[in-house]
Amino acid sequence: IAKEVAKLLEMKAQLGGDEGKPKFVLKTPKGTRDYGPKQMAIRERVFNAIISCFKRHGAEVIDTPVFELKETLTGKYGEDSKLIYDLKDQGGELLSLRYDLTVPFARYLAMNKITNIKRYHIAKVYRRDNPAMTRGRYREFYQCDFDIAGQFDPMIPDAECLKIVHEILSDLQLGDFVVKVNDRRILDGMFAVCGVPDSKFRTICSSVDKLDKVPWEEVRSEMVGEKGLSPEAADRIGEYVQLHGGLDLIEQLLQDPKLSQNKLAKEGLGDMKLLFEYLTLFGITGKISFDLSLARGLDYYTGVIFEAVLLQQENEHVEELVGVGSVAGGGRYDGLVGMFDPKGRKVPCVGVSIGIERIFSILEQRLEASEEKIRTTETQVLVASAQKKLLEERLKLISELWDAGIKAEMLYKKNPKLLNQLQYCEDTGIPLVAIVGEQELKDGVVKLRIVATREEVSIRRESLVEEIRTRTSQ
Amino acid sequence: IAKEVAKLLEMKAQLGGDEGKPKFVLKTPKGTRDYGPKQMAIRERVFNAIISCFKRHGAEVIDTPVFELKETLTGKYGEDSKLIYDLKDQGGELLSLRYDLTVPFARYLAMNKITNIKRYHIAKVYRRDNPAMTRGRYREFYQCDFDIAGQFDPMIPDAECLKIVHEILSDLQLGDFVVKVNDRRILDGMFAVCGVPDSKFRTICSSVDKLDKVPWEEVRSEMVGEKGLSPEAADRIGEYVQLHGGLDLIEQLLQDPKLSQNKLAKEGLGDMKLLFEYLTLFGITGKISFDLSLARGLDYYTGVIFEAVLLQQENEHVEELVGVGSVAGGGRYDGLVGMFDPKGRKVPCVGVSIGIERIFSILEQRLEASEEKIRTTETQVLVASAQKKLLEERLKLISELWDAGIKAEMLYKKNPKLLNQLQYCEDTGIPLVAIVGEQELKDGVVKLRIVATREEVSIRRESLVEEIRTRTSQ
Repeated sequence: IAKEVAKLLEMKAQLGGDEGKPKFVLKTPKGTRDYGPKQMAIRERVFNAIISCFKRHGAEVIDTPVFELKETLTGKYGEDSKLIYDLKDQGGELLSLRYDLTVPFARYLAMNKITNIKRYHIAKVYRRDNPAMTRGRYREFYQCDFDIAGQFDPMIPDAECLKIVHEILSDLQLGDFVVKVNDRRILDGMFAVCGVPDSKFRTICSSVDKLDKVPWEEVRSEMVGEKGLSPEAADRIGEYVQLHGGLDLIEQLLQDPKLSQNKLAKEGLGDMKLLFEYLTLFGITGKISFDLSLARGLDYYTGVIFEAVLLQQENEHVEELVGVGSVAGGGRYDGLVGMFDPKGRKVPCVGVSIGIERIFSILEQRLEASEEKIRTTETQVLVASAQKKLLEERLKLISELWDAGIKAEMLYKKNPKLLNQLQYCEDTGIPLVAIVGEQELKDGVVKLRIVATREEVSIRRESLVEEIRTRTSQ
Repeated sequence: IAKEVAKLLEMKAQLGGDEGKPKFVLKTPKGTRDYGPKQMAIRERVFNAIISCFKRHGAEVIDTPVFELKETLTGKYGEDSKLIYDLKDQGGELLSLRYDLTVPFARYLAMNKITNIKRYHIAKVYRRDNPAMTRGRYREFYQCDFDIAGQFDPMIPDAECLKIVHEILSDLQLGDFVVKVNDRRILDGMFAVCGVPDSKFRTICSSVDKLDKVPWEEVRSEMVGEKGLSPEAADRIGEYVQLHGGLDLIEQLLQDPKLSQNKLAKEGLGDMKLLFEYLTLFGITGKISFDLSLARGLDYYTGVIFEAVLLQQENEHVEELVGVGSVAGGGRYDGLVGMFDPKGRKVPCVGVSIGIERIFSILEQRLEASEEKIRTTETQVLVASAQKKLLEERLKLISELWDAGIKAEMLYKKNPKLLNQLQYCEDTGIPLVAIVGEQELKDGVVKLRIVATREEVSIRRESLVEEIRTRTSQ
């Protein structure tokens, strides 16, 4: 056997030697993309805004593996489960790529018996959905999640989640937005008083969830035709789901003769009122809309749900290109952790997820339109030489600068032309050039050139680090 | 059909209602782990050190998808290919999780026709290896890669990669380390003069690669027994691979009657000499060892290769627990990009990959041993109340603080006890408490308590933000 293996390896080595043309398509998988340096610069700006906000609200951070045991994800996503990426069975456990960060978070809490935590998690999730990449819909995309787990007084953490959405969307200056809010209990109560059988709540909820994309008539015919709901029930739902407003609507529904008789709906409306009182104290009700058509498809929500959408701006054609849509969503899921706990112990949770791919798309297109030049490095100084045979001197100087914490580059040529070195600074935005020359070496100085003004000053070698620091600190 | 679907969905909804005990094991997949807030705090320290270094050297940053087309990874990893995770065929493209960041980088360069870039990339990679988690070997782990692509003068970028390894390992204070350096051309030349047939170079190279883990006798018997090498050739290899040193050894081998006759070996030794001259200018040769036993298993290396290992520290039993081993590695791969280019155009590349899981393990255990308390949040102030019925006032104040950019928390209780609020600060390291009370509200002030000293001062509400900033800026 050993000899056979050796033979095969030999054959393979010979084949491997033929490094000819590739026989395959050169691309990233469907629905995915690379991020080049420019895109990364935008991405880091967005991340910084989001992480600052999460930290401002006192969140810790955690991370979980990109895949979970397949059974961990089973039964959590309703009709969306078909979009989960499974790994091939190569022996051992059956694995799936995470579909969101919420289920792994719940698994983490149950596994570590944590009953109280406020954390954020920023990572990629995976959905075998129909990609629409120009509108920022990908199969691999980032979620930025902030969640509060623990038994607390009603609506205080929920209100904070909405405050966070408001802070982040304001901070990123994406234009006008509205955060739609509803409650699963209000929806379920509404379904009950409209005559939807208990067993159809979830599937009818999925239909309502489509109302932001398709008109009511289509949703209605799905309910009646595909899902076997009575036309009367559907019409009653139709009346409710067109309602949206603020505290006034909540008061109105609390007086609604049918809805106010339903225990779940009443609970939900009472909490919604409390939520709006807190949001008033936060001064953000102007952007919040209590909207009975908001459903959200995922199975695990149990209370408040919400979704932030950007509003079309008529005058900025840049944004029309990327379209508008949901950029954040979340809600309360009090039962999910219990599904993982061996004894079914519940940990109430509420959280928000910021979907940044759409935000990227908008900022990317806006940046392209603005022709603003963004730097993709932070290099402070280029170590250059005016004459030949000074590679060793450049290496010595750049090493000194690195060791002093200065961000420095040099061209990887033995004898680069000064013009090329200066051009490199122009191209990449490096503000300073430290030029070594034979005379300067003798004199113990370095010539420092300010790229923007072309000014040149002689700096004593021992003062160079300090000089670069001063000149590159805003 | 629609009715059948509706029925099935009903049944599913009913089953879903039974949120009883889970029937599965509560764990992360084999060879993976969660990072809790404490681990994340350590991880961020390490990342910051590494990213600072990469930015100091003027690198841009990119990101690529977690999976690639399966064929993109085929034929790049030699015997390690069996460790690649494949995704299940769910229709559409065949995909695999990335095995490293180097092959995706080469694919990225070829796809975007980039011939010149210095970039870093920090992301998780996946290997179906035998995990040894206490020693920091996982199936999902981070790589921190820095690579320089482009046609440059010899050994200048290569020397910079070694400088980077030196800077990072010094900065992280992991104890003594050595960076072993060799060159694929020297290895191939050595194999040739020892009488290894061309077709066996790669497989014999894989055997030599094991020398850091198993003794020579075992490697020899694999070469002779399994791979069919003649005992004489093996013994000749055995003599070379025990050599290590610096410039002196390079000079000695340049005089070696056999090796110096081999074109490849001579080229490799010439470049190695140049490399050591540059490393001398960088002042880091003390930690660099030219080592003929260093092979590195991956197929794509073509020139300089290197690997950094931590040295056992006899006196610190903490480090003995986690063992020692390779924490960084890399080398030159001038042919890889050409394997992806339709016309086979080559882009010379050299790069380094920092493997941080072992570094984490060491720092984690060191931290546990030291009993140093690390904060996992950055919260500056807790908004508290001494009396009941002040929830609204707390919400108003915390909202003001958030809007002013202050990192603030409050307990999510309507009427928390002051003692519990102070205890929360002790537990989490929050340095300040802003206490609202009825008298303070009347007077237009807030009581600010310094947790460490228990001192309390009255601050006018309009000066509070400034006061918190001053007291929490180091």
